[in-house]
Amino acid sequence: MTILGAAPGPFGKSHSGAFFEDFRVGQELRHAAPRTLTTGDAALYVGLTGSRFALPCSDVFARSLRLPRAPIDDLLVFHVVFGRTVPDVSLNAVANLGYAACRFGAFVFPGDTLAATSTVIGLKESSNRETGVVHVRSIGINQRGETVLDYVRWVLLRKRDPAAPAPDPVVPELPERVAPAELELPAGLDVTRYATGLAGARHCWQDYDVGERIDHVDGMTVEESCHMTATRLYQNPARVHFNRQTAAADRFGRRIVYGGHVISLARALSFNGLANAFRIAAINGGRHAAPVFAGDTVYAWSEVTEKLELPGRADLGALRLRTVATKDRACADFPDRGPDGRLDPAVVLDLDYTVLMPRG
Amino acid sequence: MTILGAAPGPFGKSHSGAFFEDFRVGQELRHAAPRTLTTGDAALYVGLTGSRFALPCSDVFARSLRLPRAPIDDLLVFHVVFGRTVPDVSLNAVANLGYAACRFGAFVFPGDTLAATSTVIGLKESSNRETGVVHVRSIGINQRGETVLDYVRWVLLRKRDPAAPAPDPVVPELPERVAPAELELPAGLDVTRYATGLAGARHCWQDYDVGERIDHVDGMTVEESCHMTATRLYQNPARVHFNRQTAAADRFGRRIVYGGHVISLARALSFNGLANAFRIAAINGGRHAAPVFAGDTVYAWSEVTEKLELPGRADLGALRLRTVATKDRACADFPDRGPDGRLDPAVVLDLDYTVLMPRG
Amino acid sequence: MTILGAAPGPFGKSHSGAFFEDFRVGQELRHAAPRTLTTGDAALYVGLTGSRFALPCSDVFARSLRLPRAPIDDLLVFHVVFGRTVPDVSLNAVANLGYAACRFGAFVFPGDTLAATSTVIGLKESSNRETGVVHVRSIGINQRGETVLDYVRWVLLRKRDPAAPAPDPVVPELPERVAPAELELPAGLDVTRYATGLAGARHCWQDYDVGERIDHVDGMTVEESCHMTATRLYQNPARVHFNRQTAAADRFGRRIVYGGHVISLARALSFNGLANAFRIAAINGGRHAAPVFAGDTVYAWSEVTEKLELPGRADLGALRLRTVATKDRACADFPDRGPDGRLDPAVVLDLDYTVLMPRG
Repeated sequence: MTILGAAPGPFGKSHSGAFFEDFRVGQELRHAAPRTLTTGDAALYVGLTGSRFALPCSDVFARSLRLPRAPIDDLLVFHVVFGRTVPDVSLNAVANLGYAACRFGAFVFPGDTLAATSTVIGLKESSNRETGVVHVRSIGINQRGETVLDYVRWVLLRKRDPAAPAPDPVVPELPERVAPAELELPAGLDVTRYATGLAGARHCWQDYDVGERIDHVDGMTVEESCHMTATRLYQNPARVHFNRQTAAADRFGRRIVYGGHVISLARALSFNGLANAFRIAAINGGRHAAPVFAGDTVYAWSEVTEKLELPGRADLGALRLRTVATKDRACADFPDRGPDGRLDPAVVLDLDYTVLMPRG
Repeated sequence: MTILGAAPGPFGKSHSGAFFEDFRVGQELRHAAPRTLTTGDAALYVGLTGSRFALPCSDVFARSLRLPRAPIDDLLVFHVVFGRTVPDVSLNAVANLGYAACRFGAFVFPGDTLAATSTVIGLKESSNRETGVVHVRSIGINQRGETVLDYVRWVLLRKRDPAAPAPDPVVPELPERVAPAELELPAGLDVTRYATGLAGARHCWQDYDVGERIDHVDGMTVEESCHMTATRLYQNPARVHFNRQTAAADRFGRRIVYGGHVISLARALSFNGLANAFRIAAINGGRHAAPVFAGDTVYAWSEVTEKLELPGRADLGALRLRTVATKDRACADFPDRGPDGRLDPAVVLDLDYTVLMPRG
Repeated sequence: MTILGAAPGPFGKSHSGAFFEDFRVGQELRHAAPRTLTTGDAALYVGLTGSRFALPCSDVFARSLRLPRAPIDDLLVFHVVFGRTVPDVSLNAVANLGYAACRFGAFVFPGDTLAATSTVIGLKESSNRETGVVHVRSIGINQRGETVLDYVRWVLLRKRDPAAPAPDPVVPELPERVAPAELELPAGLDVTRYATGLAGARHCWQDYDVGERIDHVDGMTVEESCHMTATRLYQNPARVHFNRQTAAADRFGRRIVYGGHVISLARALSFNGLANAFRIAAINGGRHAAPVFAGDTVYAWSEVTEKLELPGRADLGALRLRTVATKDRACADFPDRGPDGRLDPAVVLDLDYTVLMPRG
């Protein structure tokens, strides 16, 4: 395996991230460093996002679903795996273009240690020859080698040398969404005793209709120290989030909030209306429509886009959701695409994902 | 049991909080969601408040009192129980008017899971018919059903419809203070080996006199991200704390710091002078005299208002304290009521509570 | 033993810190209060500093070195021991002048409880008779009485009364650096299976040369709430870090970032170039060349000043490092002393310390 992170850069033993030419299709990256997740990480995640979903917060609730204890929040797992990949994949990214085919696997429990690897599955030089798109498939595994997360993302990277020859373009085919048969249902999970009211709402899978829209009502203002602490917790070292001085000279003139923090805020807000969406099973796709900065207030609304029966499960179903987050604009009127097909300028996130819910 | 939080609001499955008409005397509310408290919550509580009391910070110290390990800070328990009640009781509160009869019960240890219920014990429409006062008695229990906290609070709520008929007024009688015989002494607690100096000061119960005043000297400036992170940790979703945009249009033009955070800061400051007040046994009453905002610096002073012997306990006694917190004003001269009976305008908190102390 | 913290001050039972006259050579101070370190403290430390070293973050990695689990970060141990000493030693310090002879001993694991004691080893009145320098040797021990940290620091303290007679001056002799034979190698540590790449870089002890300089590339902006939360986590109550109101009247007009937080940021940044420096074995000396304030962006570079073989260890070696941190100035050109011998004005920290690294 190649460890890009260990490649010497222009400053000796430190490194400044990879460029487009550093990748080849089929290359495997084993990311540093394994991370043990603890109840400390879980507490800080609640403190930084305000998430109120019952499952990651309550051992008693988790045991009512026949789990040994409260698992780590799905998105905290996502961010920690993602954070591991940043030094090797996206430290120099001009942009994070998207993700797809993201499936959550085994639950992660406090004390589990996560490691991450990536495989380069796509490379395509841009027509201007100055940048290129790199697709990687990243996998997070626990200390028993079980997959906890599996996703594809693609980033736009600068070339070190625009004149450098480019490989034949490879663009992977990606599914429009994770198929129901591919959703991972954690072993042992039993929701027959799921106490809906106790989780914060009565509404279960059968109470939601395709096309239904839900305003999540509340707004959460982002502070520099909150988003930086979250991103540091994930050990995601991408510079645009942390350096006021260099950010001042950048396009936006300010530190950019890690897009994953915005996803976490939108998910936390979605508790008000989707309290029983106890597990994110898949992220089908997502777009950060605009950057978020400190001082912005994030709101969200959701639409049910599909209702999925799960093979052999009478106790739970899946909902495919589209959650749209905005900044500085309440969502009572569901800001969306206009007649011209363009997203409302207040929209910062358009996330397509699949959650599990008890059928009640 | 009725779960108000689950009642559909004007935005479909999300809800915007209850109004005065939604309550009736005798109604029971079972709040979502149970929460397991961990050493992670405890660490973040120390980081956000600076509390230095020995008992919640040291397993060794706790074992010297024959406890199995360091318990969770009393006020962290209070805030987590309080946070559970907010969606069902006070999301729409115009004001939190007061609390009384608050008793702390069993110690909470890391790994314990707290659930909360409330009973409506008072309802009184205001004379303008636009609002009304709701009294609730809230109880926090652990996973073994033991009461860890028990208190009454009352809030001013808006009516959904001013013309709606109001129930007969009921205003509960509340004790002026929790009587010594009603103070809960945690089972197994033995302070005969309490090492006063090790806890930060030599002064024990017998060293304090009624009427004695103590300036706690230090000041702590509040930052937006600190109070928001604390309030999110407690999963208290009251909007006034989090939304810069809507706050800008409100009375104060700014996010308001959760009053409980101010209590925590005052308690943390009180370590300097009351280091051996190792346990809050009761909160007899409290008044948030003025709101605190980010940028304010909180100071505090205390007065011993009563010395209470505890039946059958030669090892420990109780002190009834009045702790007054101010903003942007040091407390060396004990800012208090003026000759006109009005509190000094710098006062933000006037708290009447009872602590346990070793007799030494 | 004397407990200075318990001495009554001008405000009754609270205290305002010690003055030069309160100390005598040979005096022993037993600091309050013991503190149990947990995975919660560890998580918050990662969130506040962004540290990415593998050992304190991964139980699996720790076990590969034959440790029972991930130990607490060395600097978190330092700050918690240091924090305990502040109320008794440096609450009134005009300046923290330096530290020396700092050795890290037994690893601290989550659940261990640390206590701290200090011995006064030097006293010297200043020529103006208004202040004096106090040297203390402080020791941190765990619940089994094992030393986890041992260091000397000296502070400049005001005299309560300039006319008070001063003791004969005593200035301890301090080593220029901790000798290799005095470095503590934690019992049971075995780095023969150390996976360098997995820790974030391939470079081992033998890959570094004396005189080699490394730019750590990244910068980290400090926020008020981040440094205050870190300093509160360590229960370091020194007022200059927390009180915006009194700071406004001070020399700098602003709250000063705890120097230890700057050390932690520099260490966290140094991961990029020194990822396998898995353990700080000693701090030989250090100087806070200038204060850091919220809004400043901290950068760092390091120089290898000595390569030390460790007696009887073929598996690991030590590097003596000089890490220089700056504010608002990138370190690609290694800002240092000018021809006039003065440090570049952007330098905030000049730290001389010794790390352990696998020999590979």
